[in-house]
Order: sequence, then structure tokens, then C-alpha cells
Amino acid sequence: MAGTGGRPRRSGVVSSGPREEILTVAAALFAEKGFSATRMSEIAEASGLRQSSIYYWFSSKDQLLRAIMEQNRVSLSAARVLVDRAEPAAARLYVVLYHDVVQMCLAPLNFYALEQTAHEQPEEFADFGLDYAELVRLLRDVVAQGVAAGEFVDVDEEDVVRTALSLTEGTQHRFHAGRGDVADVARRADAAATMAVSSLLREPGSLPAVVAAARAGIAGFAATGP
Amino acid sequence: MAGTGGRPRRSGVVSSGPREEILTVAAALFAEKGFSATRMSEIAEASGLRQSSIYYWFSSKDQLLRAIMEQNRVSLSAARVLVDRAEPAAARLYVVLYHDVVQMCLAPLNFYALEQTAHEQPEEFADFGLDYAELVRLLRDVVAQGVAAGEFVDVDEEDVVRTALSLTEGTQHRFHAGRGDVADVARRADAAATMAVSSLLREPGSLPAVVAAARAGIAGFAATGP
Repeated sequence: MAGTGGRPRRSGVVSSGPREEILTVAAALFAEKGFSATRMSEIAEASGLRQSSIYYWFSSKDQLLRAIMEQNRVSLSAARVLVDRAEPAAARLYVVLYHDVVQMCLAPLNFYALEQTAHEQPEEFADFGLDYAELVRLLRDVVAQGVAAGEFVDVDEEDVVRTALSLTEGTQHRFHAGRGDVADVARRADAAATMAVSSLLREPGSLPAVVAAARAGIAGFAATGP
Repeated sequence: MAGTGGRPRRSGVVSSGPREEILTVAAALFAEKGFSATRMSEIAEASGLRQSSIYYWFSSKDQLLRAIMEQNRVSLSAARVLVDRAEPAAARLYVVLYHDVVQMCLAPLNFYALEQTAHEQPEEFADFGLDYAELVRLLRDVVAQGVAAGEFVDVDEEDVVRTALSLTEGTQHRFHAGRGDVADVARRADAAATMAVSSLLREPGSLPAVVAAARAGIAGFAATGP
């Protein structure tokens, strides 16, 4: 459907097409030359498209930037919705981490490159750091809820969240660096979310129920099986 | 002690000094210009040292390259020694992952940059890929031993090792990217090793004993506490 194709769905899967092509090329140029120095005509040239085609998908360079950052918000959206839900913390944590891996693996750019771009161009990419800080905060709340409910062992929430996000980020890096197969993304997302969540469970035997709940879907966020 | 200062010790800690300065600068130049195109005189200039000083520490460019890759072998050395030891698999796995994080955090270069350099210069850096494959193989053996002994839950060893190394690598990236404090390295290494190992334990309550064994030292590889 024109205009909406390629929008990240709740599964985190980004479909391919001219819109994604443009986002990939634009993200790479913003990283290489800087946001301000990149012209729409260069994005068109590098995409092999006419400038009018670019404007068909994105009415401005700012809109392009917002779309790039929007691709990076699937797990944040999940965390926002799930932080206040009644389901067990383990299943909610699993879902957010799962979507974090899927989103980053299927994004055109390695997350670390996007982060580096945001670091070097703090004005344009201010939302990037805010999004990250909010994701950390929400995940900390979910972990704390799991500890308070006795689902999780006693942990330092700060350390756990930093480590869990290092895990999802390291997983996407290995995927991008190794030109991983898209068919393998769900398996990697499951492995990462499983490692982080299992490490917290007071009862390791409860893992299958956690994964089943995550796959059945919570508030519209379903983890597909590997 | 001249000539040996800065050699990675078994703790994985690399002390600083001119030798490390040279390694840092050389690694960055190899990554930027390529190994063959980098001259010893450029390494000297970029280090702010005389060429004779460079040759005091490294007799050739090949020796420099070997030293850079040697910095990356602390966890492999640990894995080689520990794979055949009688201690519980959980403690052995903890020690290797712990040292993997420490080694990569304290290395002058982000591990991913070294990996990229190895990828782009396969002839000079052939050992890099072989080292990585060997580390994966040894860790797979340790995980399989833990499963066979009933210490670990049933897992796909391949997935677990890939995920655990993504975790240690993602942890070092977050450290390098955030200009982490060296005083915090042991804490991050503990958090990463703990997450990976706890996720496998059939009895979560056995973790303190695992960590205590790792800190007491196994075959000379001791994990220092956070």
C-alpha cells in the first residue's frame, strides 16, 4: 500500500521497498557527511531514484530523519505499553528484549552506527538519547516489579538492564556484521531474550510458560517463534 | 620492567605505558590505512615517539601485529586451559566470559574495529578468525559438559555460545562507546558472565558458589570481584 509500505509493524519486521532503500541510503549519508551537509539530491542520486520519488515518500529531510528514528522505537513502544500491564514481569521483559533484537537486526543500519551518528549530531538526533534513556527506565521498572513479585532473584536493576541491552545490541551487531539471514532473526531474538530472562528467574522451570505467553501476544506485541 | 611492561596479565588487565600507546596507535592506523600501507615511521610519528623507540619495543611491523592479536587471547587462553578441567562447567564458563569482557574493555581498540580490520585484511589477520572459531568451539564443549552433567538446563549449545559472545562483545562496546571507567570493568564483566551462566543453571541458588569458585581462581585464572 503506497505510503505505508515498509512501516515497521508490531512484529518489528520492516518490509523492503523503495521507502526502506531511501532510509538506508539517507542513514548512511547522515552518518558519513552529517545531517546538515546531506542534500536531498544526494540521497536521490545515491538511491538511484529521481528527486521527485524521494519527495513522494518523504516531504522533507526532517521527515526522513524522524522515520529513521521511528524504526528504532518498536521496543520502546512495547516497553511503554507493557510497563503497566498485569502479566508476569518475565513475559513482559521477554517481549521487549525480543522486539529490541528484531527491530535492530532488520533496521538498515547497524544500531551502533545510528548511535554514533546521534552522538556526533546531538541537535538533530536529540530524541535518540531520550528514547534510549526512557527504554532503560521502563525496563528497570519491569525488572524491579519482577523482583518485588518474587518472580526474579534479587538483582541490581541498573546492572541487569545495562547488561541486557548490551546483549540485544551485541546480537544485532553479530547479525549485521555477519550478514545474517533474515530467516534467522526470530531465533536470535529468542536466544537473547531467553538468556536475559532466564538469568533472572527464581524458577528456571517457568521459562516455557514465559515464552508461550510472549508468543501468544501481550497487548498486541507477539514474539514469533524461532 | 622494560620489554615486558603492558603485557596482558592473566587477570586480563593491560597496564599502560609506551608499549600500549604504540599498540593503540598502530591498531588504529592498521584499521584506517591497512596493514601493508602503514609504515613504522608513521606509527612513530602518530605516537609522538622516535622511530628508534618503536623498534625498542617491537622489532618489526609483524611483531606489532602479533602483539595486537595477543591482547585478544586472554579468554582463549583461559578456555584452552579450562576445557579439560574437572571444576563445574558453570564456574569455568563464568571465568572465560569474565576474562573475555575484561580483555576487550581494556584493549585499546573496540573489539568490533579489530574484527573489521581482520575482515578487510584477511591475510595479515588470519589468526583472528581462527582464534574466534576456536573460542566458540571450546565454549561449546564447556556448555555441553554442563548439560551432560545436569548442571545446566537443556539448551542448543550453538545458540548459547553465539548469544553469550554477543553479550560479552556488546558489553565491551558499551564500555568503549561510553568511555567507561576502568574501575567499573570488573563489575561489567561480572554482570555479563553472571547473566550468561545464570541463564543456564538448573539451580539458580548455586550461583554464589559458582562466582566464589571463579574468584578463588581456577588454574590461575581468577575473576576479581566488582
